[in-house]
Amino acid sequence: MSGSFEVTELSRLSRKRERGSHERSNIYAILDCSLVCHIGYVVDGQAFATPTLFWRDEDVLFWHGSSKSRMIRALSAAQRVCVTVSHLDALNLGRSGIASSVQYRSVMAFGTTQPITDAAEKRLQMSRLIDRQFPGRSTELRPIHDHEVDQITVIRMPIEEATAKTKAGGVVERSEADYQVATWAGVIPIVQTIGTAVPDDRGVAHFQKPANVASYGEGQRLDTVLAASNSTLAGSTER
Amino acid sequence: MSGSFEVTELSRLSRKRERGSHERSNIYAILDCSLVCHIGYVVDGQAFATPTLFWRDEDVLFWHGSSKSRMIRALSAAQRVCVTVSHLDALNLGRSGIASSVQYRSVMAFGTTQPITDAAEKRLQMSRLIDRQFPGRSTELRPIHDHEVDQITVIRMPIEEATAKTKAGGVVERSEADYQVATWAGVIPIVQTIGTAVPDDRGVAHFQKPANVASYGEGQRLDTVLAASNSTLAGSTER
Repeated sequence: MSGSFEVTELSRLSRKRERGSHERSNIYAILDCSLVCHIGYVVDGQAFATPTLFWRDEDVLFWHGSSKSRMIRALSAAQRVCVTVSHLDALNLGRSGIASSVQYRSVMAFGTTQPITDAAEKRLQMSRLIDRQFPGRSTELRPIHDHEVDQITVIRMPIEEATAKTKAGGVVERSEADYQVATWAGVIPIVQTIGTAVPDDRGVAHFQKPANVASYGEGQRLDTVLAASNSTLAGSTER
Repeated sequence: MSGSFEVTELSRLSRKRERGSHERSNIYAILDCSLVCHIGYVVDGQAFATPTLFWRDEDVLFWHGSSKSRMIRALSAAQRVCVTVSHLDALNLGRSGIASSVQYRSVMAFGTTQPITDAAEKRLQMSRLIDRQFPGRSTELRPIHDHEVDQITVIRMPIEEATAKTKAGGVVERSEADYQVATWAGVIPIVQTIGTAVPDDRGVAHFQKPANVASYGEGQRLDTVLAASNSTLAGSTER
């Protein structure tokens, strides 16, 4: 029975449909349409997988948190970590268990953490976290106070190794006999979708959504909008 | 600036809106509306965060894979791991960076892995992976071949410790002055949504969707459907 994202299993079961890749373009594409990653790390021998927001600048991944938090304290020293991103794209309903699985895209990126403690660099990176979602929005916000900058640490991780894994395509039974099994089989797509935006009414006035917010249109795919925002950001900084 | 899922940061920033919980009901509710988890574990000193499908029976979490896979081989010995589930529920757009964050639900569960190697128990658990998504479907599929059972290992992890973290609610600025900043602020909901099912046309006949598949209706929330399926399953086995 399939279903796991695990590399060896999937590549063995349906090699032609499984795509493992070390190519930057594939890895960047999956990272850049994602906002949340899971960081794999170790504290005192205990493994953790902590979800957090992240952003990317070329081959470097960034995330942040309170300087007092367990994860940030642990990763403020040089630590070898794993940054994983995954998208669930569909449920494949086979007529056999082994042909029942999921379609997905994922990246596992490995590297060693470095804390950013310089205030100017922290400000720049905090702007990038905002601008990767809403290009240009960092300049529209109230500037970050010094004490806010002091309270956070930004972690950077240059990618040393990374693998993208993608499973696409529909149900593939293991034998012709399996196709004769009398049950519904097929694909149920799963999409992370944007809902109806709700303006905060506690402000001084109501504002029209600027273009960088309006791009998060109701019913649109989050991954598509994030990829476009990242692409705009990359262009605006002439990368 | 907020945005991270990290526990200490979030509870400090807006304590009233952050809810940390060790209650089983809260933890089960978040686990049972999720299909994918990320397993944090260590192999030869390198941390990993590997996405995979999982299921739950009372206080025990299960996942599976090829007996040859790196993760499964590593976790077939007793290993202390972390199983994390996270849902991204909304983007909160503040007028300040520190009030800009995300709404989410997450669980981190800790325990020690045990491999299931008994064939009958593996068969039972593989049925549960199918039935947790589509109650009763395991009996509609072609029975699992012995060689398929032989090729997989199921890992079980009794939960020793777990924490649920939920961030809900809209934008909360840190000062009245921040509410005067002239920019759009508010909440953009994010939902994992079910798309249009595509029947596999390579079978002998076309079947109507049975109720356990039809429940994955187009436009519905995946988390809601999974929670209902799990609830049906629990009822059918008199748990």
